[in-house]
Amino acid sequence: MKPRVVSIGDVMMRLSPPGQSRFTQTQTFNVLYAGSEANVTATLAFWKVPSTHITAFPSHDLGKAAVMHLQQYGVGMQHTLFDDDGRIGVYLIESGATVRSPKIIYDRYDSAFANADPSSYDWNEILEGAEWFHWSGITPALSANAARACLDAVTVARKKKIKVSGDINYRRNLWRYGKTPLEVMPELVDKCDIIIAGLTDLENCLGVRDDDFSSACEKAVKKHPSIKRIATTERETLHASHNKISASLFSGGLIESKQYDIHPVTDRVGAGDAFMAGFIYGSLHNFNDRDTLEFATASCALKHTVEGDVNTVTVEEIQNLVKGSNVGKLLR
Amino acid sequence: MKPRVVSIGDVMMRLSPPGQSRFTQTQTFNVLYAGSEANVTATLAFWKVPSTHITAFPSHDLGKAAVMHLQQYGVGMQHTLFDDDGRIGVYLIESGATVRSPKIIYDRYDSAFANADPSSYDWNEILEGAEWFHWSGITPALSANAARACLDAVTVARKKKIKVSGDINYRRNLWRYGKTPLEVMPELVDKCDIIIAGLTDLENCLGVRDDDFSSACEKAVKKHPSIKRIATTERETLHASHNKISASLFSGGLIESKQYDIHPVTDRVGAGDAFMAGFIYGSLHNFNDRDTLEFATASCALKHTVEGDVNTVTVEEIQNLVKGSNVGKLLR
Amino acid sequence: MKPRVVSIGDVMMRLSPPGQSRFTQTQTFNVLYAGSEANVTATLAFWKVPSTHITAFPSHDLGKAAVMHLQQYGVGMQHTLFDDDGRIGVYLIESGATVRSPKIIYDRYDSAFANADPSSYDWNEILEGAEWFHWSGITPALSANAARACLDAVTVARKKKIKVSGDINYRRNLWRYGKTPLEVMPELVDKCDIIIAGLTDLENCLGVRDDDFSSACEKAVKKHPSIKRIATTERETLHASHNKISASLFSGGLIESKQYDIHPVTDRVGAGDAFMAGFIYGSLHNFNDRDTLEFATASCALKHTVEGDVNTVTVEEIQNLVKGSNVGKLLR
Amino acid sequence: MKPRVVSIGDVMMRLSPPGQSRFTQTQTFNVLYAGSEANVTATLAFWKVPSTHITAFPSHDLGKAAVMHLQQYGVGMQHTLFDDDGRIGVYLIESGATVRSPKIIYDRYDSAFANADPSSYDWNEILEGAEWFHWSGITPALSANAARACLDAVTVARKKKIKVSGDINYRRNLWRYGKTPLEVMPELVDKCDIIIAGLTDLENCLGVRDDDFSSACEKAVKKHPSIKRIATTERETLHASHNKISASLFSGGLIESKQYDIHPVTDRVGAGDAFMAGFIYGSLHNFNDRDTLEFATASCALKHTVEGDVNTVTVEEIQNLVKGSNVGKLLR
Amino acid sequence: MKPRVVSIGDVMMRLSPPGQSRFTQTQTFNVLYAGSEANVTATLAFWKVPSTHITAFPSHDLGKAAVMHLQQYGVGMQHTLFDDDGRIGVYLIESGATVRSPKIIYDRYDSAFANADPSSYDWNEILEGAEWFHWSGITPALSANAARACLDAVTVARKKKIKVSGDINYRRNLWRYGKTPLEVMPELVDKCDIIIAGLTDLENCLGVRDDDFSSACEKAVKKHPSIKRIATTERETLHASHNKISASLFSGGLIESKQYDIHPVTDRVGAGDAFMAGFIYGSLHNFNDRDTLEFATASCALKHTVEGDVNTVTVEEIQNLVKGSNVGKLLR
Amino acid sequence: MKPRVVSIGDVMMRLSPPGQSRFTQTQTFNVLYAGSEANVTATLAFWKVPSTHITAFPSHDLGKAAVMHLQQYGVGMQHTLFDDDGRIGVYLIESGATVRSPKIIYDRYDSAFANADPSSYDWNEILEGAEWFHWSGITPALSANAARACLDAVTVARKKKIKVSGDINYRRNLWRYGKTPLEVMPELVDKCDIIIAGLTDLENCLGVRDDDFSSACEKAVKKHPSIKRIATTERETLHASHNKISASLFSGGLIESKQYDIHPVTDRVGAGDAFMAGFIYGSLHNFNDRDTLEFATASCALKHTVEGDVNTVTVEEIQNLVKGSNVGKLLR
Repeated sequence: MKPRVVSIGDVMMRLSPPGQSRFTQTQTFNVLYAGSEANVTATLAFWKVPSTHITAFPSHDLGKAAVMHLQQYGVGMQHTLFDDDGRIGVYLIESGATVRSPKIIYDRYDSAFANADPSSYDWNEILEGAEWFHWSGITPALSANAARACLDAVTVARKKKIKVSGDINYRRNLWRYGKTPLEVMPELVDKCDIIIAGLTDLENCLGVRDDDFSSACEKAVKKHPSIKRIATTERETLHASHNKISASLFSGGLIESKQYDIHPVTDRVGAGDAFMAGFIYGSLHNFNDRDTLEFATASCALKHTVEGDVNTVTVEEIQNLVKGSNVGKLLR
Repeated sequence: MKPRVVSIGDVMMRLSPPGQSRFTQTQTFNVLYAGSEANVTATLAFWKVPSTHITAFPSHDLGKAAVMHLQQYGVGMQHTLFDDDGRIGVYLIESGATVRSPKIIYDRYDSAFANADPSSYDWNEILEGAEWFHWSGITPALSANAARACLDAVTVARKKKIKVSGDINYRRNLWRYGKTPLEVMPELVDKCDIIIAGLTDLENCLGVRDDDFSSACEKAVKKHPSIKRIATTERETLHASHNKISASLFSGGLIESKQYDIHPVTDRVGAGDAFMAGFIYGSLHNFNDRDTLEFATASCALKHTVEGDVNTVTVEEIQNLVKGSNVGKLLR
Repeated sequence: MKPRVVSIGDVMMRLSPPGQSRFTQTQTFNVLYAGSEANVTATLAFWKVPSTHITAFPSHDLGKAAVMHLQQYGVGMQHTLFDDDGRIGVYLIESGATVRSPKIIYDRYDSAFANADPSSYDWNEILEGAEWFHWSGITPALSANAARACLDAVTVARKKKIKVSGDINYRRNLWRYGKTPLEVMPELVDKCDIIIAGLTDLENCLGVRDDDFSSACEKAVKKHPSIKRIATTERETLHASHNKISASLFSGGLIESKQYDIHPVTDRVGAGDAFMAGFIYGSLHNFNDRDTLEFATASCALKHTVEGDVNTVTVEEIQNLVKGSNVGKLLR
Repeated sequence: MKPRVVSIGDVMMRLSPPGQSRFTQTQTFNVLYAGSEANVTATLAFWKVPSTHITAFPSHDLGKAAVMHLQQYGVGMQHTLFDDDGRIGVYLIESGATVRSPKIIYDRYDSAFANADPSSYDWNEILEGAEWFHWSGITPALSANAARACLDAVTVARKKKIKVSGDINYRRNLWRYGKTPLEVMPELVDKCDIIIAGLTDLENCLGVRDDDFSSACEKAVKKHPSIKRIATTERETLHASHNKISASLFSGGLIESKQYDIHPVTDRVGAGDAFMAGFIYGSLHNFNDRDTLEFATASCALKHTVEGDVNTVTVEEIQNLVKGSNVGKLLR
Repeated sequence: MKPRVVSIGDVMMRLSPPGQSRFTQTQTFNVLYAGSEANVTATLAFWKVPSTHITAFPSHDLGKAAVMHLQQYGVGMQHTLFDDDGRIGVYLIESGATVRSPKIIYDRYDSAFANADPSSYDWNEILEGAEWFHWSGITPALSANAARACLDAVTVARKKKIKVSGDINYRRNLWRYGKTPLEVMPELVDKCDIIIAGLTDLENCLGVRDDDFSSACEKAVKKHPSIKRIATTERETLHASHNKISASLFSGGLIESKQYDIHPVTDRVGAGDAFMAGFIYGSLHNFNDRDTLEFATASCALKHTVEGDVNTVTVEEIQNLVKGSNVGKLLR
Repeated sequence: MKPRVVSIGDVMMRLSPPGQSRFTQTQTFNVLYAGSEANVTATLAFWKVPSTHITAFPSHDLGKAAVMHLQQYGVGMQHTLFDDDGRIGVYLIESGATVRSPKIIYDRYDSAFANADPSSYDWNEILEGAEWFHWSGITPALSANAARACLDAVTVARKKKIKVSGDINYRRNLWRYGKTPLEVMPELVDKCDIIIAGLTDLENCLGVRDDDFSSACEKAVKKHPSIKRIATTERETLHASHNKISASLFSGGLIESKQYDIHPVTDRVGAGDAFMAGFIYGSLHNFNDRDTLEFATASCALKHTVEGDVNTVTVEEIQNLVKGSNVGKLLR
């Protein structure tokens, strides 16, 4: 079965203490395997969109476990590279509660994916028949190899007339291999149709400075005319257990979504990826801009109620939330 | 020891993923055994009211486990029928969170209880010495056998001057054996002193249509003059984690209870049964209408804080909530 | 990607109390999804043999969870039928310990698979490009529909020159739809290349009576000349925690495997399926009879050390056990 | 329903670290409520023998939880005394493993039962209609009050021609209230029909010294002519995970049971109580001495496979083990 | 390494059902070891303030486990007394939820600490080099021995010019050994520099009656001129899951802290001890009164988000909350 | 308090699936912090021998958690180095079962300890007052920095007349920084009094080749005359759940210990460290060679029954096993 969506990105082992337990208290971790781009693809596969994720793992059992974790959602993992000597990145998340912030520890350097030789990927074969390619700003931040692989992929995708989305996702702590985002990102964004980016992302990755999202988008589109739409999510953090979620879409003009009140928050990790997945889903199904934005925002809101990185809510659940029908009610 | 209260009804195995986990995520289920009418009786037994529940189970270990589960509360299970070839119904509940609704899956057809021969119950012996009989609209919806058993029971109860309560509890998906509620329910309700019913229950089961609860009750009482009181609970679902709970009692005129704000909700299943148990408890102890309603409503509100179907809060805890004293405070 | 192996069969929800806990004690169940034939295919997929399983599920979340469970191993589930009104079969297993036997409770009647219309499967498309088809005696025992689907499948497979294996697996309690095994099984076995069958299977399903496995096999092969090989596993149960495992293969003459001593047993469910998977793996990789038998037997032995139905041990682990190198040793 | 069996004894909260975990490692305890005599009665109730246990608890929720724990087996707890100021005894058990011994910590002094006024029990009412009364040597060791209650009970039982069994169960550490076993036990044993006692019990509690069980029994019976039978279990501890279990019965002559090999042991606590329950069950059902002994010994052996103090194995499972049929086998 | 802070007090085993589970439902307890004064010292040690706690335990493994629990935070336990015959006190906490109050059961009488001979402590050696001594009103309430030990300690501390803090913490149910608080507490308070006390504490322990905290403090300081500062926390309990927390400090004049809104509450036990620890930390680091109060209050607020008795939040997390920067936000 | 024993070595986060679960199955890991040398020191501290461990951690919460884990045993961690940019090594252990081998995955490169500057340790201060220093062959294998730190430590220890033990512990996979063991180890061993080494260790690290342990030791002692004693443990692996454990000590002549049969094995990791700890304990307490060897071997055997890396058995438990008294028996 040909994939409709292909993504690239590192996948880490995620360790989290159960419930509100702290790193310094816990005797157990919940474990799963996740990464921003794979979260998007896994959600799409869960929604029955044929999807493939491109990554690299160590050959040992954690690599196998990561493959199995993504396969359960239906993600095609047949192109995975295995490295006998490599490691899998690790991230640890401690959930916060009210006045206590969540904490993240990353231990992801030198992962098998970051070290993988970019020439190992045969993009012509991988992208054969696909309709959409997705990448995020994490990949070019990891290593020169990963940045190269990403650029190769978007270049081939562009040639094949495949739609490209990029979640700019600027993370200052990642860029350690000698390049700055401004040296790397513009060339990648030049090959995108859609990007997810807030004001700081636009400034740090594209050099677009503006206090207003709408005018910043106008400037960005002027510099990178391939971009048709720019979206961003807005989180109002009343405290760690109480967030309000909405989103905006620039598509010529600015559209703003409904806002959702989440109290208490179950797990906010992957909420941006749930938005991205919703956005791609809407686009693949030819929703109009307004409907795409509302679908993506409701997907994002619902993610806050689900443990783990992947948004295992159904399309029907999202549509019910958009419609506002029976929200939170038990139907027998 | 003679029971004061007797009930009839199917008891299912309840499976629920721990915490906020989804059906499609979980590797474990919490398991217990529950059913609307048994929940009422178990709560009364927990409150030291001698009580017996009438049901049927498969002979295998799940039937034994169900008996043991109810016996722990003190419910007399000595009349249980065992079927070597039968099955126990199953229901699965996934708890919701904020904008995500809870989900229920029923797999309850052809249970040992639904198939049990109604002539196997010796109601004269079972009801000997009892003061109260309780049934719900689930039983006559399950099968012709179960409807017959229910009718036999209320008929004998009526003859013995035992008070009868019926929780009308209309569930559209259940009525599959060829009868409609309107063919079955009125005859049962004719033998009741008290019913729990909201507007849709009154319409679907008794054919009483009215937009106002008070006038609907007046009409229902006119058609079924044995009924002295009709009560109903009202749930305002702000979202899955935030509910407001109150109740109304029609007893000639209309009485409305205090409203309780529950945020976050721990487990809302069985809240109606907790109300029913409170109502029976108040009635058995000769509380006046106002006190009975407030006791039942506080019982219902407290159920939202307890995991499982049975309301394991004490009479003292309910009374403290009614009085509003030290709500939520830690007393050493 | 074309599958090399295709199987058909019902998949149930498996519930098991943790550790040595009994049905009448437990407050939790471990849950997974399994069935004899799917266990075989899942193991093969885990070993990187492209495989597809054919079955039917209810449309609700337990059906989704079952699909996801099998997808994690890499099993292709794209042909799954979904039934809006169906149920998933359930089986419950309580593990034994020394003098206490394990217990199984089945609640599998009227599953979506048993009720599925056999004309819904397009076997020409499903089997396109496959090399091996696997079925077991459970499927024709479930319902006339399932028996029909199985017969259709082996008929098409035979026409396409696909190798067919059947695990005869006689279970007296299953045959409830009005047919006897002797009316149904011979026609299916006529289209097999390889069967797994012990003396009681041969007697009850093929009418072949003999006290000696070798001569029974000779008779069976005479009656069903398509059969090239008959294999069987032998379990010596010293007690529930201590088993000895070996196997025999009739392939013209009789070959007997090494015996493995398992003490304590972790989980013996699926051990026969692990043998079958090993047998298919060896056959697909052109192992000779001796090597195929030893590989399958070691796979079976290792299954006893793994929780769940699927034998998640690697090909390398099996080969090391066959060689007897470093058995049980920790290698750093 | 009149009880057939009545017992008296303290019930403690039992705390145990999960699995092989040590007291100094664990962050969780498994909790249940148990005591030697209640274990016997609970097992009998589980086997459908109507049974009542006499004890006292604090009024707080641990007392309620203890009542509920025993009620689940069907034990009648209606005579329980509640003490607003009392405590429940606690015992903690850490399971051993091979060369590491299990450990027990007792914190049971001044329990509500030990302090309960013996005049609070109305033995004429409690024992009305009973056929059997059971006590153990733990009760008279706890306090003068408890010893008095026990003596009152056996005196009334004797008068009512109720059979009396005593599990002598000498525990040196308990006798702290100023009396020695030799001052208290002979008078109690004088009112027994059956006792469980090994050589050290006979010596310490009855002053009967002999190296041979058979001749010791002869002497004991001479001193206490009411005693018809003396039984004892024998445990051969190869190591903490490997025990061999058998038993002997003196009933005029000596009868010795089969021996059972238990490896690995799941939970050996309550094995003697399982023997006692089996012995009473056999006696109530008029088994002959040999059958009674074998039933009791198999019950004892099976207890080693069950977590907790109560032997939740069925009569059928015990009878299968006695017959030696299908031991440890999985029957579908 | 010399301790800067020394405390005295009983340490109990704390048992709590997981999550919202009730005492009458749970099959497991979470276990840890805690006591008001040790909670303070453990928090200080966690913040790298060298600290020692003085107490007594039984010699068995629960005593060892308690020592290990406190050692993990870095508390010096080298002066612990061990009693071969003693017991450890136990307390059980069931967390409440919205309208359901938390419940505590104490079983702490006759603990090894309560019974320890006060002459066993060599206060000159223990306090050598210390800067701060902390005690609470629980200790003199437990037994004459404990009251004596406490008085000896503060007397020596005073002589050595060590600062002394007392958390008055009046608990009516404790005073059972024949003395009243008014006979014991004033003498102890006479040797304090700082006390934590609310209006009821001041009235019951010091005989100071006043409706206004500020004037009550003025009176208390007049009677006990050694006292420089009196602080108290204020909890507004909207319901069990929703509390508002603030505090006041009398230091000549009255200072009031910010108020924190905690919804939902994770674990409120030890919140007062977290305040005390914050107060001592601020004092040791020469914060001014305002900063000390805000640090202590934020420490108290954050404690509500942490499971267990000890406030395992970092100094940095507290300071961020005081500053109000990034409260509840996830920083990558 | 001055430490009697000081050790150096890396400490990793250990992750292990619960029970027999496999890496590819588990959704949770048990977590603790361990390393060969710290395991030795933690056991000694648990036995009340004042001990300090020297290592380095990242500054984030996993470093804090590791410190807390070791502090609970009483290990002095006051000299720990913290690295703001560092990582903690990770190892993952999957326990085997009968014919399935345990599996280990290491992800330990570039740990804070491996990268720590050797000049950061002030060995004169660290070793002030100590009697024993312990290191293992893992440290010099990790990095040039770690090898240097180890050499500095043994050099200072030697000068201070502190006894030095080295667990040679050759692990081929570790030596990756450009040096071979033969270039590094002899110089370290020259400063040891006692080493733990088997034949392959002696060959690979000291270049001593011999098939007989006794003559190999003679040669080693000749080359490294500081060595007084060489000990080694022998494990006979019948299968993963069944091991036999003994040990030998060369001290001029050869002494062989009793052999212990462990079936089933709970956790064999750290068994060598438990032997080492026992050996140091015996030496510090002036046991003779035979008693030291038997104490160390029994410590090693008992470790197999304890979960985790640290041997939390008491000195009394070890001595009882050496004496063979009441092995595996429950004493009340």
